[in-house]
Amino acid sequence: MFKTIITPNMSDTDALRHINSNVIPLWFETGRTEVYNIFNPTHELTYKKWNLMLVRMDFNFIKPIYYGYDVEIRTYIIKLGKSSITLLQEVWQNGQLRVNGKSVMIFFDYIRQENKAIPEDIRNSLLKEIISIDELEEKNKKEIKNNKKNKDYEFIER
Amino acid sequence: MFKTIITPNMSDTDALRHINSNVIPLWFETGRTEVYNIFNPTHELTYKKWNLMLVRMDFNFIKPIYYGYDVEIRTYIIKLGKSSITLLQEVWQNGQLRVNGKSVMIFFDYIRQENKAIPEDIRNSLLKEIISIDELEEKNKKEIKNNKKNKDYEFIER
Amino acid sequence: MFKTIITPNMSDTDALRHINSNVIPLWFETGRTEVYNIFNPTHELTYKKWNLMLVRMDFNFIKPIYYGYDVEIRTYIIKLGKSSITLLQEVWQNGQLRVNGKSVMIFFDYIRQENKAIPEDIRNSLLKEIISIDELEEKNKKEIKNNKKNKDYEFIER
Amino acid sequence: MFKTIITPNMSDTDALRHINSNVIPLWFETGRTEVYNIFNPTHELTYKKWNLMLVRMDFNFIKPIYYGYDVEIRTYIIKLGKSSITLLQEVWQNGQLRVNGKSVMIFFDYIRQENKAIPEDIRNSLLKEIISIDELEEKNKKEIKNNKKNKDYEFIER
Repeated sequence: MFKTIITPNMSDTDALRHINSNVIPLWFETGRTEVYNIFNPTHELTYKKWNLMLVRMDFNFIKPIYYGYDVEIRTYIIKLGKSSITLLQEVWQNGQLRVNGKSVMIFFDYIRQENKAIPEDIRNSLLKEIISIDELEEKNKKEIKNNKKNKDYEFIER
Repeated sequence: MFKTIITPNMSDTDALRHINSNVIPLWFETGRTEVYNIFNPTHELTYKKWNLMLVRMDFNFIKPIYYGYDVEIRTYIIKLGKSSITLLQEVWQNGQLRVNGKSVMIFFDYIRQENKAIPEDIRNSLLKEIISIDELEEKNKKEIKNNKKNKDYEFIER
Repeated sequence: MFKTIITPNMSDTDALRHINSNVIPLWFETGRTEVYNIFNPTHELTYKKWNLMLVRMDFNFIKPIYYGYDVEIRTYIIKLGKSSITLLQEVWQNGQLRVNGKSVMIFFDYIRQENKAIPEDIRNSLLKEIISIDELEEKNKKEIKNNKKNKDYEFIER
Repeated sequence: MFKTIITPNMSDTDALRHINSNVIPLWFETGRTEVYNIFNPTHELTYKKWNLMLVRMDFNFIKPIYYGYDVEIRTYIIKLGKSSITLLQEVWQNGQLRVNGKSVMIFFDYIRQENKAIPEDIRNSLLKEIISIDELEEKNKKEIKNNKKNKDYEFIER
């Protein structure tokens, strides 16, 4: 699991006084930084070097996220295909899971415009981080239950 | 179907010289404007008046989108539940379908924090726009085929 | 003067129920599209072809901008140097000037990394649109006065 | 001085393979977080509680910023008026100053819609952080000179 702490910006809120849903794709991209680093240690964003293509993403908005409190982005690898990788990412705030979503990326040759097989060394780095959805849901259920006593930030709802 | 024309901004591109995937949620929100107007003709973004809550969205990235050419956002209603509405939205450019994705919104009372049934008058306005996924896919297949002769913007790939 | 109409997105608002200030740079970029088109009719965003570099921008926030009503972005050329161009851009809503700001761009060779002189044909297209700040302020003063009777969108302030 | 480290996102780049200028206002807002905390320790973004209004901001783009390397946002207070505060903010990367800009905020009563005098306790917290522009420029000049030996990230320019 890769963990990233983000301090929400005032401009991330909308008139309903929650973090706007369109901010989450940006936070999840920040959360994918370490995965990008494993695939692209030189950080070179050119057709010759870059090797990942996002083909799908989804988002489930479970609870509102508030301004004024840090959020934790958790990034899990849940599936590793021959040339694809599937991530599950979560936004936690005040001990509660608020948004989650998957993204699928393809290991891709931008010059030849075709999929490539993920090489062994990258595959091995990634396998260390893999988790099953069932295992993750079990873990989350416990954590959420333990944190149920946390008072949520309801004052902002006025 | 609701149609919105958008001129991509230079800042919507990324270093791979395509429109970045994180821009699409914003374009789809622009595409939902007329749906918001049906639900919220006063445009009042307060807990008392606003009545929609986004609970899910997903995106399929089919082909890259390029700077320099207008895109068309097409917004379809594909499902209408007692208190939920499901949209399918598409990005077209140069006669080709490049991104699509669904979003699910709940008709919601922000003060009581509970779902409400969508009223008859709103339901009737929406039903006029409903289309089945099968019908839509058939329609798209024909249109894409007809446009296959369009030369795509490959020069930017250098 | 170049005129662009924009429908604000819900995600453009912030918790103070106005359009957030960080949205304005994006709207002004949309407003610069026609200027970009004069300099770059092929829209090719590569080092070989693209020829503009933004070196300065500023923003004055005069009155709040509200969700639910279209805004008009007005883009004026106020200065044309040997290799630089200065724009003044404005956001109008409901007949009132709400934000303005200048931006300075340099006609630039990205391969050689040096300024170039703006060619005669581009210069001539731009000169047609030039206006002095004094002339513009006079014009705006009259327009704002004429529109003073417009009721502003105060209901959202609750 | 308040210091914030940011890891640029891939979506912060544009087709010219630098960080796009429209990202900087967001980074500067992140950099103002600690100033907001001094004025609004409860983080409550409502008309009753929030007390800052941005009235002006400007940006000077000095050198390009690259993907793949952390940036440092430095936030200085350079002027403190009866009810206004002026910040100077900078983006540093690889030991070089790349963007700077000022922002002016007013201590504001959103219910009465009028300026207020900044209270003594807030003023005292802020005065500890004040620096003159001359002093800052002197300090920066030395630091930039010391770092001139750093090789810049030119490889991305291909």
